[in-house]
Order: sequence, then structure tokens, then C-alpha cells
Amino acid sequence: MSEYTITVIKNENPKPKPAADKLKFGKYFTDHMFIQDYSEEKGWHNPRIVPYQPLVLDPAAMIFHYGQTVFEGLKAYRTEDGSIKLFRPDKNMERLNRSNDRLCIPAIDEEFGIKAIKHLVHIDNEWVPHAEGTSLYIRPFIIATEPYLGVNPSSTYQFIVILSPVGAYYESGINPVKIAVENEFVRAVKGGTGEAKTAGNYASSLKAQEIVAQEGYAQVLWLDGVEKKYIEEVGSMNVFFKINGEIITPMLNGSILKGVTRNSVIELLKYWDVPVVERRITIEEIYESYQNGGLEEAFGSGTAAVISPIGELAWEGKKMEINGGRTGEISKRLYDTLTGIQYGSVRDPFGWVVDVK
Amino acid sequence: MSEYTITVIKNENPKPKPAADKLKFGKYFTDHMFIQDYSEEKGWHNPRIVPYQPLVLDPAAMIFHYGQTVFEGLKAYRTEDGSIKLFRPDKNMERLNRSNDRLCIPAIDEEFGIKAIKHLVHIDNEWVPHAEGTSLYIRPFIIATEPYLGVNPSSTYQFIVILSPVGAYYESGINPVKIAVENEFVRAVKGGTGEAKTAGNYASSLKAQEIVAQEGYAQVLWLDGVEKKYIEEVGSMNVFFKINGEIITPMLNGSILKGVTRNSVIELLKYWDVPVVERRITIEEIYESYQNGGLEEAFGSGTAAVISPIGELAWEGKKMEINGGRTGEISKRLYDTLTGIQYGSVRDPFGWVVDVK
Repeated sequence: MSEYTITVIKNENPKPKPAADKLKFGKYFTDHMFIQDYSEEKGWHNPRIVPYQPLVLDPAAMIFHYGQTVFEGLKAYRTEDGSIKLFRPDKNMERLNRSNDRLCIPAIDEEFGIKAIKHLVHIDNEWVPHAEGTSLYIRPFIIATEPYLGVNPSSTYQFIVILSPVGAYYESGINPVKIAVENEFVRAVKGGTGEAKTAGNYASSLKAQEIVAQEGYAQVLWLDGVEKKYIEEVGSMNVFFKINGEIITPMLNGSILKGVTRNSVIELLKYWDVPVVERRITIEEIYESYQNGGLEEAFGSGTAAVISPIGELAWEGKKMEINGGRTGEISKRLYDTLTGIQYGSVRDPFGWVVDVK
Repeated sequence: MSEYTITVIKNENPKPKPAADKLKFGKYFTDHMFIQDYSEEKGWHNPRIVPYQPLVLDPAAMIFHYGQTVFEGLKAYRTEDGSIKLFRPDKNMERLNRSNDRLCIPAIDEEFGIKAIKHLVHIDNEWVPHAEGTSLYIRPFIIATEPYLGVNPSSTYQFIVILSPVGAYYESGINPVKIAVENEFVRAVKGGTGEAKTAGNYASSLKAQEIVAQEGYAQVLWLDGVEKKYIEEVGSMNVFFKINGEIITPMLNGSILKGVTRNSVIELLKYWDVPVVERRITIEEIYESYQNGGLEEAFGSGTAAVISPIGELAWEGKKMEINGGRTGEISKRLYDTLTGIQYGSVRDPFGWVVDVK
């Protein structure tokens, strides 16, 4: 069998699908999953689509001990004509391989990865919801499976894709959220794994998130780990600010995730001739521009939420209300256009959307 | 059933035990394992010792995606009279709970954790090897098991203990190793998870390790993530230097693991009236003391290796040969005494060793 032939074992006991208004983020999973194995002898081999089922792993499997794992997140969208689209899956597969490199995991074949995702989504196409704002979240991930407690890269892996029909990531939708600037905890640092999409970055973020949630904030704004002054990300999203008509986002520096939505926002803004710049930006600069009236908008960008406006930013006891706590014009335009492209209701001049055939 | 009653299901098909001279680190596992579940309703419940078996987990279980997990490492030693001892298990359970706090995992009952470990080791007591230098490595770990893709602490967990009969961690034994100072990659940073024993720290370390291994070095010496000048750890061990008769180890700062062996080394040195100090120390200071002849010894400390002498330290193209590349006097004395206490051949004035009854 060629390693590019995907074996399919159909699920004979499909689950009932949750009602569209009951969908949450990442709670329900479809009837099938994709799995491919890696060994040093065979490389990546035995790609298969099988009924959604538990993973059966030795308790010494390295994923449980040393966190050698990477993941991705993208979505399949139901368009008005009933067809199903993916949004820039090539970017996700490209980033998956960059993450693999940082985590010493063997590279996957990116084109084959897209093919596997399309095949899986096609088989579970009835799970792609129809209601507005809903989609099918796609979670590719790779885990180290060798049962061995030495601190070394694993010799075996599994590449897995699971699917989850989702509503909006934030239950309150596109409404602005309150964000607290994090001064104690650090998400990532230059030389660490911040640029990779790997489990440890998210584990590291939970504590800060838990603390600010008690104070009524939805997410934290992460500062750099070295000087604690440069802005990096917001929660698990990239972040943008509109100051005196210009859109600013932190430049990629090794500890910031290279977001697909981040890149799409930048491309769109350039296409619209809206000034956009990637540069280092301090929290002091944000506060100063807030004080002199220059801070017009702020928003996060990510696959799950697409665009998440920031209505309030709290920093060292100071509260900055942004755009009167309402969704800003550019945030709204980006959200409408990006989701419009994703759902096929807005023309895609970039070739970003890909058919699932 | 009280949560303090451990259900035992005996393995009816025990495995053959590997020969003492075939033992490696973390390759073989015993006939039984301990498992306890956590749910928000029941807290930690259903502690059980069962045949060693695979974990069966939903592919959406949070351990696979967001790395919410902690672990420990300690050993059971076979003494000359045939009895079995643990070394300071209270310190491991204390640290496990500190790691739990950082990773938003519910605390375990530390005393019960020790009881569970003793019970498990007792049941698999025939797996504690008799040959010199061998031991039974004990790996407690906790994993997030809720099948949910939101970036939040899990609502369910499993606390698991597995056992592995081991030879020496370093196949070359107490012989000195060559270490390269790491200038590009960072293991951990203040505000991150460096002080916690959690998977992401180890995942982060693999790349640097892989690169220096190609150049013939056994491990990397980690510098701080902020100024890249203060010494933090060596590989997955704490590190000590003997300079002009004084033993120096980096002070705990939030990004350095609070090693049990590190603490035992400090306690032993104080007991011997050997000058020992915990303070910040730069790589420049190490190099200067090397140049002026003051750098007498260097060694790592950890559960797996106990004491691992450093024979050569490479930094920015400069090579420092330490103590002529031979094991130093204090390294040897510490190794002999610590292993002597652990194996019951040297008197334990500290009450560190604990009987497995």
C-alpha cells in the first residue's frame, strides 16, 4: 500500500448531531478521525480514517511526560450553496511543520496533510453545520508515542485529525471583551517555544487566565518575557491596535505565534490601503496613545474567534476604555470580510478558500 | 469506599524481568500501576492498583492539546539486607503539589500519595533490582483528561504512578560528561513554568539537546532567559560549581527546578562544614575563575544520575577542562554518600530514607 492511500473504515454507529443552537466550542466530535503513524524505519505510514475512538497509549508514552507534541486549528465552512470550504489550510500545514522542527518531530508531507483533512471532512460532511456563525473546527495534532522515560525525541509518533462542530468561540459573539495586562506570568520567551503551536505554551497560560477571570477579565494581554514591556499576544490570539488611523501589530520575534488570521488581517488591510505596520510596541505607548486620544481600536485575531474586539484594557490599576467599549469600525469590517470570505458570501481576491471535494 | 482504600487487582500474567545487566533508564515497566481519578464532583477518588496497561483516552483529552500535566521522579533502592527504601518521597509529593498549583491542577493528598507509592512498590517489590547501582525508578504523573478543546483547566484528571527498573542513567556511570553552554535556546523564564515539573519544559529542551549532541556534548548548560548570562540548570539537572574551595549553586528564582537532590547536596555540604552558597552566578564568572585557576569542580545533581561530574564546559568557542576532565573529590564524596544513604550502606543522619513496608 502506498503511503498516500488512505484506508477508510466507516463508522457503522454514527452519533446524533447536536442542534445548531446547542453548539459550543470544542465539546462535540464527529464520527470519524484521521490517524497516521510514524516510525524511524517506515517514516510516516498507514494513513487511515477510522471511527472516532479513544487513543490507546502506553502510560510511559512520551506525550504524557515530556510534552513532545504540536497542533493546529482551522475550520471548514458551509457556504450558501451548500458546499464546504477550508480557509488557507496550506498555512496551517506549513506552520505545523515549523512547529515540528522546533519540537524535534519529523516533518509531515504538507500536501498530503491537506488531502487527509479534505478527505476526513468530506466523509463527515454532514457534521458541517448550516446555521450562521457555525463551522466545523479541525484539530490536527501530533503526539510522541514511544514508551520511554529518557528525555529525548521519541522514535514513534501519531498524526491525528479530529473534527468538532462549533458555534461561536466567545458565547457573546463579536462583542468586545475586557482584557487585563499580565505583569507576573509569562507565556513565552525568545529562545523558547512561543512561535511553535505546542501544548506547553497553553499549559503555561492557564494560571494567569484563571486569576484574571476571577476579576472579570476574559483574557490576558501578554508582555514579552525579557523586559515585560513589549506587547506579544492576547490570550491565545494575536493582537492589533489602531492608533491615529494606523494599525499596529507586534512584529514576529520568535516568541509570538505566526497566526494565519494575523497574516490574513495584514493582507486585507494592505488590500484596502489601510496603513498597517508590524513593529515592537510597548504597553506604555498604548497607554500614552489612550491618554492623548489616539487609541481608536484594539482587537485580537485567531482561527477560533476570527476577530475579537477589546473594549477595555486594564494595566497596573489603570483602565483604558477603547472606542467607548464598542466594536470598532475596522474590527467590524475585518470580521465581516474575513467571515464573508470564509462562508463564500464575499468575493475572495486572494485565493484563500479551498473547496472540499 | 473511603478514598483512602486502595483497590488492588493483581496482574495474573506477570512479565519476565530483564537481566540486571540489560537495564537501561526508563525502558522496562513493572507488572502494576497506580491510578486515581479526579472529577469536580468527587474530588480525587477511586485509587486503585491494577495490572500495567495502556491508558484509554479520548483524542480530545486536554493532555494531548494543552499540556496540562505534571510529573515527579524518585527511586526505590534495594539495601544490603534485602529491604526496600525510598529517598525523601515527602519532598517529591510536596513539589508535585507546587507544580499542580502552577498548572491549575487540583492538589493531591501528599501523605496518601506516599502511601500509594509504597503500596505499589511493595506489590512489585520483586522488580526492585539487586545489582549495584540499579534501582526502581518511580514516575508519578497527573494528566488532564477532559475531552474539550477550550483553553481552560480540565475538569477531570488522572493521577498515575508507573515503575521502571533502571540501571545507571548515564551509561558511562559517574564519569565526567562534556557540557555545552546554550546561547540560543531557553529552557524557562521567570513568570513561566520553569520551577514546575511539567512536560512543556522538557519539550522545550529537546532542540538544544539535539544540536549539541551532534557536536559530542552530553547536555546543555542553560542560561537565564532574560539576560542570557546567569546560570540556571544543566540538562535536566541542577548544577553546582566548586570555586576556590566554595560550592556555589544558582539560587532558586522561579525558573529553576527545586531539585530534591539539589537540596540534599546542600544539606550534606552544610553537615560536612563545606562552604556552600546559593546565589546568582554568571557564565563569565565561571570562565574567569577557570582562567585564574579557581574553578575546581562542576557537577549536575538529579534523581536519575544523582551526581554527574562535568569534565568539560564549552562556551562561545572556549573550552574549559575542569579538574583535568576527571571526577572531582567533592563530586565523588557526594555521590558515594548520597548513594550510600540511599542503599543503606551509609548512616542516614537526616531521616531521609523511608522503609517500604
